[in-house]
Amino acid sequence: MLDMVNPAPSEGPSLEELLKRRRPGYSLEAPFYTSPEIFQADIEHIFKRHWLYVGVEPDIPEPGDCVTIDIGTNSVIIARDDDMSVRAWHNVCRHRGARLITEEKTSVGNIVCRYHHWTYNLSGDLVFAEHMGPSFDHKCHSLKPVHLRNVAGLLFICLADEPPADFDEMAKVMEGYIAPHQIANCKIAHQSDLIEPGNWKLTMENNRECYHCTGNHPELTIPLFAYSYGFAPEEMDDIQREQAARYDKLVADMTAEWESKGIPAREVDHLDDIVSGYRTQRMPLDGDGESQTMDTKVACKKLLGDLTEAKLGGLSFWTQPNSWHHFMSDHVVTFTAIPLDAGRTLVRTKWLVHKDAVEGVDYNVEDLTSVWRATNQQDSDLVGLCQLGATSVAYEPGPYSPNTETLVEKFINWYVGRMRTHLHIAAE
Amino acid sequence: MLDMVNPAPSEGPSLEELLKRRRPGYSLEAPFYTSPEIFQADIEHIFKRHWLYVGVEPDIPEPGDCVTIDIGTNSVIIARDDDMSVRAWHNVCRHRGARLITEEKTSVGNIVCRYHHWTYNLSGDLVFAEHMGPSFDHKCHSLKPVHLRNVAGLLFICLADEPPADFDEMAKVMEGYIAPHQIANCKIAHQSDLIEPGNWKLTMENNRECYHCTGNHPELTIPLFAYSYGFAPEEMDDIQREQAARYDKLVADMTAEWESKGIPAREVDHLDDIVSGYRTQRMPLDGDGESQTMDTKVACKKLLGDLTEAKLGGLSFWTQPNSWHHFMSDHVVTFTAIPLDAGRTLVRTKWLVHKDAVEGVDYNVEDLTSVWRATNQQDSDLVGLCQLGATSVAYEPGPYSPNTETLVEKFINWYVGRMRTHLHIAAE
Amino acid sequence: MLDMVNPAPSEGPSLEELLKRRRPGYSLEAPFYTSPEIFQADIEHIFKRHWLYVGVEPDIPEPGDCVTIDIGTNSVIIARDDDMSVRAWHNVCRHRGARLITEEKTSVGNIVCRYHHWTYNLSGDLVFAEHMGPSFDHKCHSLKPVHLRNVAGLLFICLADEPPADFDEMAKVMEGYIAPHQIANCKIAHQSDLIEPGNWKLTMENNRECYHCTGNHPELTIPLFAYSYGFAPEEMDDIQREQAARYDKLVADMTAEWESKGIPAREVDHLDDIVSGYRTQRMPLDGDGESQTMDTKVACKKLLGDLTEAKLGGLSFWTQPNSWHHFMSDHVVTFTAIPLDAGRTLVRTKWLVHKDAVEGVDYNVEDLTSVWRATNQQDSDLVGLCQLGATSVAYEPGPYSPNTETLVEKFINWYVGRMRTHLHIAAE
Repeated sequence: MLDMVNPAPSEGPSLEELLKRRRPGYSLEAPFYTSPEIFQADIEHIFKRHWLYVGVEPDIPEPGDCVTIDIGTNSVIIARDDDMSVRAWHNVCRHRGARLITEEKTSVGNIVCRYHHWTYNLSGDLVFAEHMGPSFDHKCHSLKPVHLRNVAGLLFICLADEPPADFDEMAKVMEGYIAPHQIANCKIAHQSDLIEPGNWKLTMENNRECYHCTGNHPELTIPLFAYSYGFAPEEMDDIQREQAARYDKLVADMTAEWESKGIPAREVDHLDDIVSGYRTQRMPLDGDGESQTMDTKVACKKLLGDLTEAKLGGLSFWTQPNSWHHFMSDHVVTFTAIPLDAGRTLVRTKWLVHKDAVEGVDYNVEDLTSVWRATNQQDSDLVGLCQLGATSVAYEPGPYSPNTETLVEKFINWYVGRMRTHLHIAAE
Repeated sequence: MLDMVNPAPSEGPSLEELLKRRRPGYSLEAPFYTSPEIFQADIEHIFKRHWLYVGVEPDIPEPGDCVTIDIGTNSVIIARDDDMSVRAWHNVCRHRGARLITEEKTSVGNIVCRYHHWTYNLSGDLVFAEHMGPSFDHKCHSLKPVHLRNVAGLLFICLADEPPADFDEMAKVMEGYIAPHQIANCKIAHQSDLIEPGNWKLTMENNRECYHCTGNHPELTIPLFAYSYGFAPEEMDDIQREQAARYDKLVADMTAEWESKGIPAREVDHLDDIVSGYRTQRMPLDGDGESQTMDTKVACKKLLGDLTEAKLGGLSFWTQPNSWHHFMSDHVVTFTAIPLDAGRTLVRTKWLVHKDAVEGVDYNVEDLTSVWRATNQQDSDLVGLCQLGATSVAYEPGPYSPNTETLVEKFINWYVGRMRTHLHIAAE
Repeated sequence: MLDMVNPAPSEGPSLEELLKRRRPGYSLEAPFYTSPEIFQADIEHIFKRHWLYVGVEPDIPEPGDCVTIDIGTNSVIIARDDDMSVRAWHNVCRHRGARLITEEKTSVGNIVCRYHHWTYNLSGDLVFAEHMGPSFDHKCHSLKPVHLRNVAGLLFICLADEPPADFDEMAKVMEGYIAPHQIANCKIAHQSDLIEPGNWKLTMENNRECYHCTGNHPELTIPLFAYSYGFAPEEMDDIQREQAARYDKLVADMTAEWESKGIPAREVDHLDDIVSGYRTQRMPLDGDGESQTMDTKVACKKLLGDLTEAKLGGLSFWTQPNSWHHFMSDHVVTFTAIPLDAGRTLVRTKWLVHKDAVEGVDYNVEDLTSVWRATNQQDSDLVGLCQLGATSVAYEPGPYSPNTETLVEKFINWYVGRMRTHLHIAAE
């Protein structure tokens, strides 16, 4: 074939070899961040086989509302039927394969393919297809369904035929934590899409530590305790040690107080010991902090659900492989990281407020979003620096801090474990 | 090698396997539309081995006129010599390989390489090359010729050493059909290049059916009979059945009338039973329709050749793998689809009128081109939707309508047959 | 894996086969210019294993000055320490692999990673890394050094663990030639980056002959003798032969005169017989020519170093694989070609003048740079034409002129020889 050259046998290790020899406590070898082949394997074994957070009930409040999401090259429709049930299907016509819905959000009566007007109802059944002749069976040409779960208003999909079963245990736990914030009674006040110039695992590693927050996130760190990021006790002086102890006591006190009021708060961490890995904890904010805002006060006067107290700390919720969420008394910020290629990742952020809150009266978008708009961009820049570094011949896995990067290590543990399982590889 | 990972043995089928198991009556499996490897195989076995329509005599009316066309990465010069003969060569200098002509159209005395001024005449001979020493043989460094045929003014090239021989039979038939429109006495009134965001086979499948015309092509369908697209008789009521019968009779009547006047009109279909596959038919237009225009009337007052009757229907001509043409009494529209990569295809459209027609007096470009400019863009959008769908894990071959997509099936038959032949594969 | 197709066994030759069968006296086969696999092999065996010219001492005149250069995806920092020594390291943090310095030029006290503030001094030692715990050893996490040599003010790096040893012999010779121009006492008056649309070897082949100069480089050829480009004696008439003989005598006379004054001038050519291949010669300019400028006069009134005579001809210096340099009495122009991918090459050009020359008084940038800005763009266009040609099925290696393209042949000899050595291939 023209210009095709039979490559010399590569000196590079195989994915299997790389997974086998992974060194605990260290970042991954470079090909995990740069190789198109490993990116495809990530899509295949991580993103097509696990539950993915993709949106919220307020994306589709009314019957006929649709939202589409692309996982790799796979587009999925999530729609609300007339009976208010929520369903998901692949966004592909069963005739000539045309994409059915091209908008990220729309509202429809039926799902009609533009090409030859094949028409599906909101249960996914093919209800109209002209000129196909008497032997054509409509029932064999329904939309292909995608598994969907609704966890207290957060929508997860799974592209696998048999999704991981332990998701339901996670869902049961998390419904209690999230319930007070009543996602279904929220609306989306703002949404942003940011394409980070790095591999999705760099995006996730960045999300799983706050070692980098001081000095990189001036806005985000306003309401956060510095001692909540992790620290090396042996590097601290007596004053610092005392402050850290005070912080630990505050967390214990507030946890007890919140739980006594029926608001779940204590840490649950299954980041690397189950298939549908997750972690949650409600943590106090610094000083008089009420919310993740520039002035640490609530950004929306109308609190979520039936909440009456603004000072409720922040409930964080992380899922493997690709989401994180912060629930405050007045608003929710929720993030999903969607891999685009080996070197680019879409981070989609949604800011939710009470559905009855009035823009310009109860809240304004600028104040609501300023902390995380700034933080997302700062993180994107850092992820880009790591992607550049990973392409260098000089890159080698570096050590994670045993104090401030433990959740990064757990993310990597989970990733490597899932890949080994699907590729039938034992650790060395 | 840095970052190179030995890919795990792919689970995907080979091209051979895909060709073997092709299911008749259904669209192709996804890799045929998306795989870079199959795209390369298409270039190798389809576009380098078959006759391709690339232009018209009016592209190069005068001695020294040149037009260039790129087939994949292969640029070809077509030029008219002083004796009015038309020749084609590869657009590559025999010295250091520089591209010789960079414009799509130009006019030259000799073909001079910009790099070191090696100079070729319009017979392709190297006539000047400085500093090459006494042992250098000019005769061994002529331009490399490309096979060229002129079919009643339509120019076809073939990059193969031995082009398919049955082309000449097609040419003999088609010369009769096209002759009344006298292409050599036309000029190019307008040309457009549109890059469709899809595989070239999706462009061709789109071209080979009008199932999608209703609802997608409001401009094109004005002068066309709905019953000319194909239909499922068993889905029709009595009134529709009667109209369809009337249409069939009209076609038979008009064909007889035109042929009695020496204007070939009857259908000839060799789309999938010969190597140089083609199809032609002259078909009546709806009502008082004269031409493929918004008002169904001729767009050019000066009719083509010696024609005196405006109401001559439309002669269509399709060739495998990549062209289609419509000849009306007043103008010709001619199309070629050039693959750019697995997901992009250039569609080049030329509108011809009589060479003596005067712009602004006999015709204007806006009215002449409005139907097909709109239609091309609509088709491009539809092709793009199919390309998006084909990349989804949920895509699977869908059934062609046995009534309205029979010519699509014939295109696929031809394609699969040619690929099997060149790859020495028997059907399963 | 989705859409992955097992490619049919390629009919293309291997790199080994291509290297074995290379035909002397002819340009390379197409894959050498177009194949991504051979591009990677070039990076691996040429650019990672040989000395590369990357900058000049005036890039980093003061302590703390840094310049970065990207060789493929490998970014390297070159910095001046407080003791005025110059060092080079990979631009990669040893923690999470972030790129450390993102600017092409900057000045720093220490090298601080933006991500987690790991800090390295200008000797490359890690001097600060928080939260890493008591078992963390700073000494194991220094910046990774890169080999660096300073040849009379020209900076060369080598990414190999064991760089070619014969570089030092070249350095010893060249220091004498360059010394009169005193690079360390220059400043950079202007720098340009141009991305040529072709393979780096086409950039180099273009640089190694002036067969193309007449007709393509009207500005450059003003001060040059046409007879300095090489010519075929048997194509010349008596008058031309006489002029050529006069040119040969002029070169001999001027060489003797310059060398008698202690200014090395005679040709040294080791382009294809040593690993660190190079060539140099001081050549007279045409007529009263003093410098490579539009009016052939010096562009800077203040001459370089201790020079007092403007009419010093031009000292040229070429190194394999990727640099060329011209030293005149008043200024220096220095070029490095950095491969970006199989079809793109960065050419970085620096114009140096005496560091005490005053812009607007002693020189202006427009006059200083106009010849080579024009010439670079013209060469880039020519390289682009060859890249287009090399992708055609019709491309085949063409003959080099035995009179005007002998240094091109030597470049190819060197390249093929180095590749054969590293891939353990004998010539056929």
